[in-house]
Amino acid sequence: MSLDKCRSAALKINAGKQAGRHALPQEEINTLLARHAMAGRRVVRLKGGDPFIFGRGGEEMMALRRRGIQVEIIPGVTAASACAAATGIPLTQRGLASEVSIITAHHQEGGEGCDWAQLAARRDRTLVFYMGLSQAASIAHGLMRHGLAGDTPVALISNGATSRQLAVRCTLSRLPESAQHEALISPCLIVVGSVVELACPHRVTQALPDYEASQWVA
Amino acid sequence: MSLDKCRSAALKINAGKQAGRHALPQEEINTLLARHAMAGRRVVRLKGGDPFIFGRGGEEMMALRRRGIQVEIIPGVTAASACAAATGIPLTQRGLASEVSIITAHHQEGGEGCDWAQLAARRDRTLVFYMGLSQAASIAHGLMRHGLAGDTPVALISNGATSRQLAVRCTLSRLPESAQHEALISPCLIVVGSVVELACPHRVTQALPDYEASQWVA
Repeated sequence: MSLDKCRSAALKINAGKQAGRHALPQEEINTLLARHAMAGRRVVRLKGGDPFIFGRGGEEMMALRRRGIQVEIIPGVTAASACAAATGIPLTQRGLASEVSIITAHHQEGGEGCDWAQLAARRDRTLVFYMGLSQAASIAHGLMRHGLAGDTPVALISNGATSRQLAVRCTLSRLPESAQHEALISPCLIVVGSVVELACPHRVTQALPDYEASQWVA
Repeated sequence: MSLDKCRSAALKINAGKQAGRHALPQEEINTLLARHAMAGRRVVRLKGGDPFIFGRGGEEMMALRRRGIQVEIIPGVTAASACAAATGIPLTQRGLASEVSIITAHHQEGGEGCDWAQLAARRDRTLVFYMGLSQAASIAHGLMRHGLAGDTPVALISNGATSRQLAVRCTLSRLPESAQHEALISPCLIVVGSVVELACPHRVTQALPDYEASQWVA
């Protein structure tokens, strides 16, 4: 669905978020959805990605259900799938990865943090971190401290599946350094696992100190 | 994309699979894709779900790339997202699940099986098993043996996100029994985790010995 296709008379409210700049706090979004629904309007909450994978869809659904409002969820293509397709990195692959885990490294204040031992337990598993750029050093240290090899392939995908996509390959031990590169900006997905070896060479660039940004753009 | 929308002159080849009945072996599909591409045709390999999550997209991509054929991957809505939306089960939820893992319980001959200790390590994680119906007993026993509570909520979703969807809720300890119910057929997704508690009551039915099938249909 695109905004161009909605009725011209439809009321459009921007409730969008960008990292660190919430257009509206979540609680206000919930209230706004409920208020318009209870006024008898048909409300569409439009989001990027899949609403049920780090999209707060569950919170909004529950806030509406508690008020007796019926909700229908339309699934979407989550960032892991979109970025994987755009870089040629299969999330699962026979012989390489029999499991894919989607994790957020962006913790709430007071959150307990990632369980690195559990995440580092297997080589035949793909880990996809959402909103991970500022946590890249914790991810690398956490996983390596619990036994994941420093040469495990890693991809950083910035502005994935857009015309501004920038995808860089490195190893787990080089991740903290690579993530600091100014050309990589949020939103950025971090993929850890052997499947990164299969990345399309035209779409994912080796991180090099003497890179030229123009060579990287997909 | 739908088949109705392709050019009437396009050659259509059914390479579909159903559990246990492969219309064409994977190696033949790879060869077929390559043969038509090398004859100068534009080949579309149409699949359900996301090609890079247990869709063999990686294998087909690599088989083509090895022959020097360019491949573009279009991502899709994977079954976990489609079934979650259709049952109102958020795959992640603040305070309940900070990670979602997608796993296949359908192992190749000689495969090493699931790492139950790793999978059972956390309560605040959603596990989604693809093609898991015939492995339901192994899933339940494997997870419980490694400490996941027998009262962990579970949903079985058969023919998810179709008009024939049947979704049943049980607990991990009741999973082997529930999975044997004749009304549940493959393809069937198994979701394990606290988020199942949030399922829409109109779409997911409690498994009861005296159920009536008609009450279950979404």
